Amino acid sequence: MKASAIAAALNAHTVGMDDAEITRTVHPDEAKNDGDLAVALTPETVRLLADTKAELVLTTDDAAVPKDRFKTMILMARSRSNLTDLTSLLRHHHEAEPGIHPSAVVASDAVIGPDVSIGPFTVIRSGTTIGARTVILSQATVAEGSTIGEDCLIHPGVRIGWGCRIGNHAVIHHNASIGADGFGFMPAGPGAVEAAKNGSITPGIGPSRNPLQKIHALSGVEIGDQVEIGALTAIDRGTLRPTRVGAGTKIDDLVMIGHNVAIGTDCMLCGQVALAGSVTVGNGVVLGGRVAVADHLKIGDGAVVGGGSAVATNVPARAVYLGFPAVPREEAFENLRLMRRIKRFLDGTKRADKAEKSR
Amino acid sequence: MKASAIAAALNAHTVGMDDAEITRTVHPDEAKNDGDLAVALTPETVRLLADTKAELVLTTDDAAVPKDRFKTMILMARSRSNLTDLTSLLRHHHEAEPGIHPSAVVASDAVIGPDVSIGPFTVIRSGTTIGARTVILSQATVAEGSTIGEDCLIHPGVRIGWGCRIGNHAVIHHNASIGADGFGFMPAGPGAVEAAKNGSITPGIGPSRNPLQKIHALSGVEIGDQVEIGALTAIDRGTLRPTRVGAGTKIDDLVMIGHNVAIGTDCMLCGQVALAGSVTVGNGVVLGGRVAVADHLKIGDGAVVGGGSAVATNVPARAVYLGFPAVPREEAFENLRLMRRIKRFLDGTKRADKAEKSR
Amino acid sequence: MKASAIAAALNAHTVGMDDAEITRTVHPDEAKNDGDLAVALTPETVRLLADTKAELVLTTDDAAVPKDRFKTMILMARSRSNLTDLTSLLRHHHEAEPGIHPSAVVASDAVIGPDVSIGPFTVIRSGTTIGARTVILSQATVAEGSTIGEDCLIHPGVRIGWGCRIGNHAVIHHNASIGADGFGFMPAGPGAVEAAKNGSITPGIGPSRNPLQKIHALSGVEIGDQVEIGALTAIDRGTLRPTRVGAGTKIDDLVMIGHNVAIGTDCMLCGQVALAGSVTVGNGVVLGGRVAVADHLKIGDGAVVGGGSAVATNVPARAVYLGFPAVPREEAFENLRLMRRIKRFLDGTKRADKAEKSR
Repeated sequence: MKASAIAAALNAHTVGMDDAEITRTVHPDEAKNDGDLAVALTPETVRLLADTKAELVLTTDDAAVPKDRFKTMILMARSRSNLTDLTSLLRHHHEAEPGIHPSAVVASDAVIGPDVSIGPFTVIRSGTTIGARTVILSQATVAEGSTIGEDCLIHPGVRIGWGCRIGNHAVIHHNASIGADGFGFMPAGPGAVEAAKNGSITPGIGPSRNPLQKIHALSGVEIGDQVEIGALTAIDRGTLRPTRVGAGTKIDDLVMIGHNVAIGTDCMLCGQVALAGSVTVGNGVVLGGRVAVADHLKIGDGAVVGGGSAVATNVPARAVYLGFPAVPREEAFENLRLMRRIKRFLDGTKRADKAEKSR
Repeated sequence: MKASAIAAALNAHTVGMDDAEITRTVHPDEAKNDGDLAVALTPETVRLLADTKAELVLTTDDAAVPKDRFKTMILMARSRSNLTDLTSLLRHHHEAEPGIHPSAVVASDAVIGPDVSIGPFTVIRSGTTIGARTVILSQATVAEGSTIGEDCLIHPGVRIGWGCRIGNHAVIHHNASIGADGFGFMPAGPGAVEAAKNGSITPGIGPSRNPLQKIHALSGVEIGDQVEIGALTAIDRGTLRPTRVGAGTKIDDLVMIGHNVAIGTDCMLCGQVALAGSVTVGNGVVLGGRVAVADHLKIGDGAVVGGGSAVATNVPARAVYLGFPAVPREEAFENLRLMRRIKRFLDGTKRADKAEKSR
Repeated sequence: MKASAIAAALNAHTVGMDDAEITRTVHPDEAKNDGDLAVALTPETVRLLADTKAELVLTTDDAAVPKDRFKTMILMARSRSNLTDLTSLLRHHHEAEPGIHPSAVVASDAVIGPDVSIGPFTVIRSGTTIGARTVILSQATVAEGSTIGEDCLIHPGVRIGWGCRIGNHAVIHHNASIGADGFGFMPAGPGAVEAAKNGSITPGIGPSRNPLQKIHALSGVEIGDQVEIGALTAIDRGTLRPTRVGAGTKIDDLVMIGHNVAIGTDCMLCGQVALAGSVTVGNGVVLGGRVAVADHLKIGDGAVVGGGSAVATNVPARAVYLGFPAVPREEAFENLRLMRRIKRFLDGTKRADKAEKSR
């Protein structure tokens, strides 16, 4: 792709040779070949341009870079969408054959929309619908009665259980699980948790058995439009109502979403987040990496929970919570200061005692 | 299904039209169609019946609901098995062809029991045995020398490594891994952990290498009868003895069970739990969501560990542990109170100091 | 295998019958059959020899075991590699057909080295290279433009995305994901995190939407030689430079490695570890089970971080860190002592107050 073409597509302008051929787009530290275009859209990467081996550079038009240092510069107006615009233009297009791969096993009654691609070793069960232009790369499963919308991208190894609904423009990554059974079991007699609650001796422990009986999940999972679900993430099906993920919500890898959970629109759930059963999450919520939320709690609209926090109470709308257990940000910082205050105080007391004794 | 048929199967009785046709069983908030049966077996859901759109309701015979508000009511005697009985009656039956799908690759010496279903793109290696009536839905793997018992349900993408044994009536969900190698490595020379232990400088760091040598796992995994294993859970194989999961134990999604672990019967391990190598767990134990247990520790029979806790000591039988690190429940609560006491004390000291100064 | 053959391969010697036939190698507690060789290379397992049912024993020549108690003893000189040598000798060899299984879908331009084994239902896309003697067991995916080195072992269900590079002698376990997209999104307008940072009211929450726009990942993943990657682990692709894992590094199950991460050589990352985006890890680092590291942080060469710790600051080379948040080991221990000091102090104050009042 020529520098001029990239500039045109991004409403940018070029300085220097505008017909330079670009073969790769890289971090300034990674440039080593003639066709490498170094991208510097943050203050840190702009600084790295001083030492880059690149001769082709893309940056913002306000970056303090000598304009004649490079063979070609592509200059964008600064905006919050610089990187999304650029990477969207240059994004990878997955290898996907049009139509249904001859190896795929597709039920005769499945409704397959126009321009769908279904890759090798995929299994599509009966009563399913796959919307127009959706791509299922390979080795995925869509179980009976499930629906996938239009323009979705389903990566290899994704498993979609029976009776689930995926909206339009969804992306689901490697080996994610949608619609495994929720974790619902009831001990036949009172179990260890009940004993712990009322302080009695746990029955049925030892030689006698107290079998756990399954609460079967009768409902599915509903995923809205524009949702993205990371690799190896599990979203379990609901018991009597679907587990729901609202439109525009993005979920990272290795996330666990329990049965009956309801998540709003445009949320971000970072890696290894866990939502226990029946949690409710509002719109525009951000849960940092590995946040855990205990069952049946509610997280309000626009709330932010810091990475690693364990949420054990409801979180109000627009609040910022942190810690283990999570508390409002100010309280979390006060708790940290408290430890230092205690230490100073006790050390002072000790010194005073010693002084007293040595008198 | 007619209301009368459901009532008969559940030893319940009906009030109102007992031939109403039920097409779906839902949470009271989800009802919208004529055939929707709203289920209310808890105080919270019984309260929601006041506003449900359902005309068909299933609840307990002691629920305070006006008997003429609905077209049909199915009334069960209150019992701890109401929900397991109901959902067991109405549970989904997976689409599974009888016999071996023509696409499956099954070793010629594999012993396949009667009425087994082996779905598309499944690989069954040599020396394996699959018990009667077991269903392997699709795209799963059973490696050489492994045995699956009778009446099991193996979901798509499950991987069972070589030399593993699964009991009867086991359920294994999407993409779970049974029998990957345990994580055992030994640095060729003393490594960073040894240096940390004896306070010396770490050798082999920097330009020189200190390669990690693999301790190969020679044993497998043994899973008892009636065990359920969640989606994307990993149970690693043992080194010189099998990793073991006792009968009736239920394991949620994204759980990590290290090599040489031994778990007893009828335990519950909630989402993202992690047991490091050689942990021993007794019978009837409950580990809340994301509990971690450090290597070689023992959790006694009937113990309960609260969600998010990090277990760094043995836990006695029937004890209830909480926290990071986990301590007995009373101690955990006392620690929380302690923080409040110290805050009050320091604030008091500060006020006294100020009063002193202002005198 | 005869005892004499094992002894010869391990530079060990035998006492007793040296032609005893060994059929299985087990922990002393597991021995039950004639051909069971009990292995006791640690003080704990040597003690268990007193009660083992085994008649064949392998131990070190300095173990305090009566030399006539067993039919056959194999005695090794004590060394740090006893267990790696033994298990390497007796390790399992996976069932793998030579060549490409007829069911595999391999692009016509894929470059497949000599003596490669590609198992059933594997998908190899165009522009790929598979090095000599590499074994891909079954149902795996190698997407377009990716390279796997020589002598690798790829377990069932592994997904390798486009444009990734795996070195020689790598082992990747069940259902691991290499090269799913990194988690990069930018709200179209200022989002909840920005609002939290500057204390303003979050816009775009409620009826109006603030869509998250994807930062597409343009780069891949580079895995060095001798790397081992556990089951269900995710290593995401980089944005403008590859996510990198250095030679000799070993990664356990259910680990999450974010985009743009760079890990050095010979590290150990235990189960459920999480590295957020752009983390840098040096050489010879050990991260205990479930350690989390926040984005953009650096862990120095030879550092050790204790299990369960949450790293929120850079960690210097050779340091030992612990806790939540992680601090130097000495400080972590002092913090624990501090809680006890507080308790003693407050209890003392209370007693003094009571004494004062009762006077």
